[in-house]
Amino acid sequence: MPDPKERKGISKWELDTPCLVIAEDILEENIRAMQVYAAALGKKLRPHAKTHKCSHIARMQMKAGAVGICVAKVSEAETLVNKGSRGVLITSPVVTDYKIERLMKCLLQDPELMVVVDNAENARKLNAAATKYALKLSVLVDLDPGMGRTGVPFGDGVEMGRLLNSLPSLRLRGVQCYAGHVQHISSFEERRQASLDGMNRAAEVVRQFHQNGLPCDIFTGAGTGTYEIDARIPELTDLQVGSYTLMDAEYLNIGSSQNPSRFSQFPPALTLLTTVISMNHPPFATVDAGLKALYHHGGTPEIVHPPGLGLHYDWWGDEHGRILLPIASPKVSLGKVLELVVSHCDPTVNLFDFFYRIRDGIVTDIWPIDMRGNCQ
Amino acid sequence: MPDPKERKGISKWELDTPCLVIAEDILEENIRAMQVYAAALGKKLRPHAKTHKCSHIARMQMKAGAVGICVAKVSEAETLVNKGSRGVLITSPVVTDYKIERLMKCLLQDPELMVVVDNAENARKLNAAATKYALKLSVLVDLDPGMGRTGVPFGDGVEMGRLLNSLPSLRLRGVQCYAGHVQHISSFEERRQASLDGMNRAAEVVRQFHQNGLPCDIFTGAGTGTYEIDARIPELTDLQVGSYTLMDAEYLNIGSSQNPSRFSQFPPALTLLTTVISMNHPPFATVDAGLKALYHHGGTPEIVHPPGLGLHYDWWGDEHGRILLPIASPKVSLGKVLELVVSHCDPTVNLFDFFYRIRDGIVTDIWPIDMRGNCQ
Repeated sequence: MPDPKERKGISKWELDTPCLVIAEDILEENIRAMQVYAAALGKKLRPHAKTHKCSHIARMQMKAGAVGICVAKVSEAETLVNKGSRGVLITSPVVTDYKIERLMKCLLQDPELMVVVDNAENARKLNAAATKYALKLSVLVDLDPGMGRTGVPFGDGVEMGRLLNSLPSLRLRGVQCYAGHVQHISSFEERRQASLDGMNRAAEVVRQFHQNGLPCDIFTGAGTGTYEIDARIPELTDLQVGSYTLMDAEYLNIGSSQNPSRFSQFPPALTLLTTVISMNHPPFATVDAGLKALYHHGGTPEIVHPPGLGLHYDWWGDEHGRILLPIASPKVSLGKVLELVVSHCDPTVNLFDFFYRIRDGIVTDIWPIDMRGNCQ
Repeated sequence: MPDPKERKGISKWELDTPCLVIAEDILEENIRAMQVYAAALGKKLRPHAKTHKCSHIARMQMKAGAVGICVAKVSEAETLVNKGSRGVLITSPVVTDYKIERLMKCLLQDPELMVVVDNAENARKLNAAATKYALKLSVLVDLDPGMGRTGVPFGDGVEMGRLLNSLPSLRLRGVQCYAGHVQHISSFEERRQASLDGMNRAAEVVRQFHQNGLPCDIFTGAGTGTYEIDARIPELTDLQVGSYTLMDAEYLNIGSSQNPSRFSQFPPALTLLTTVISMNHPPFATVDAGLKALYHHGGTPEIVHPPGLGLHYDWWGDEHGRILLPIASPKVSLGKVLELVVSHCDPTVNLFDFFYRIRDGIVTDIWPIDMRGNCQ
């Protein structure tokens, strides 16, 4: 990581590339807007840190009113808990002995730590580990929204709830249902229907929990693609949105409640800067961001600067990108820096060690992406 | 990075996942075999570190007889030079003032450092910087193999050579021609033809250099996909092969001189371990390696353990993979670890901080992937 003192105060156009920059005013507004939206509908936010992998941004979300932070992996929880986060929810099952041991170390520091469960044997293992440490581990029943990735079928939700509630060192808090497969459905109406198909059945499980006297003060789910849809479900208590903070081209190109072909409620706070390094082959220019700087997933990155030239990015191997330059312009010449919205923010963020924080085009700070590489 | 002392001596099946493991005997043999092959044809090796991003492996390659190490980016050169490497070649143009300044810092430590050039203005900038530091910078003319990514057209090679040779603080050493776009052509015969189309024209430029009295003791090029083809070109002096060290499914699935549908001269030394974390939806199992642990590029990863079950991996979002399990087996159950050959080794290696080095199934060491994230 560069010395923040050396880079603070310089123009973003002078930064070494490829690099990720965050417009801090847009980030702050995205965090505020989602919090206000959820609060107006009586919902809480439990934002997902898998997107930004940055404890600074997690703290901003907590400060804005979030009730906790979600992570996908134990190693991410470790990073956050070590930096002082409390109430972390791990949204994937934790099954191996080694990871359960690490989970217990996190629980010692964060007594409100939660994890989802979708298997009876796993539930008993978690209970045994918590008993050994004389701790109480908060758990949620993970409900499969119909995707088949993790979670129990809706019909088995109550049975799993009863088991978790019966194990003395586990503390049943409720359910999770996250429909990752519907978040990027292009048509808003089709997305709405697909999300409600699963989430309404999860709401039914919540009602069954209440009818059966099972604790259920949490029903967590939803993503940036479905926040408006799922927030209307009365039983849902909190939203696990992540990408709304940074945004990417994949999300910008789906329909929204306001526009059938664009999702622009949350403007992109994250962009990538890349430099033209070769120009011997018009109408193409070669830039220094390839597969290793811009994750090859989620559609096509959008070039936002320079505007109006019809520039188009395509990957060109591990180290380079190819820019289609339909008309020659002095704005795209050797050494010039271009700015683009990344195609898929989560895995692209995971390629870098830090963000440059930018206000009015000037570097104000450097934020470590301190959960980068935490895929365990 | 885990404490090596804690992990040494344990079975690879007990490692926390997802993680990358290297079978050190296979790695050693791949390094030895390529060196022997090149030497038998009177060629040198200048292996590309962009694949493994690991200074330990670069040192193994040098010890085995390599004349230098290639890197794609200045930040990789910095890491290698700081660890003691000498004779590093940067295989992409270095164009911005900031990067040229960093290049000069590397040159102060590694007087044999080389960089490729494909633009006259850039050549003059490099010359001015070297003059300022009273240094001599070794340069190669980068020849475009017909891909249009970097390099000058063949017809401009001599003119660029003359310019580089005329600039007092540059030391012209020869040419580079790397045909990245042909390395993975499936048919060996078509690949041979496509590679020779470019490399023979580069050889012609080398002959023109000699005819014009231009220095040309280096003609570097070739990749793992074309090493057997390009090594037959008399003018070629050294091979920039990279992937032969670790290998991946993308390379395994192209034809070779020995087999029309398999490239098995270099067995995979690199594999990824991943754990089954959910199994509620047969015939699929969910594992803990998704887009962030296994770069989504280069075809399909190959599951090598457990063998014989017809297991098939597919990505399932940022955090998970989906294993198709055609027949139920106790070898694939909750918590079991699977081993697979990654689809594309270079960008997958770049997702991790270290390799576990394995011999006879036991961890012998941990090697930092110390150029990981060096995309600048």
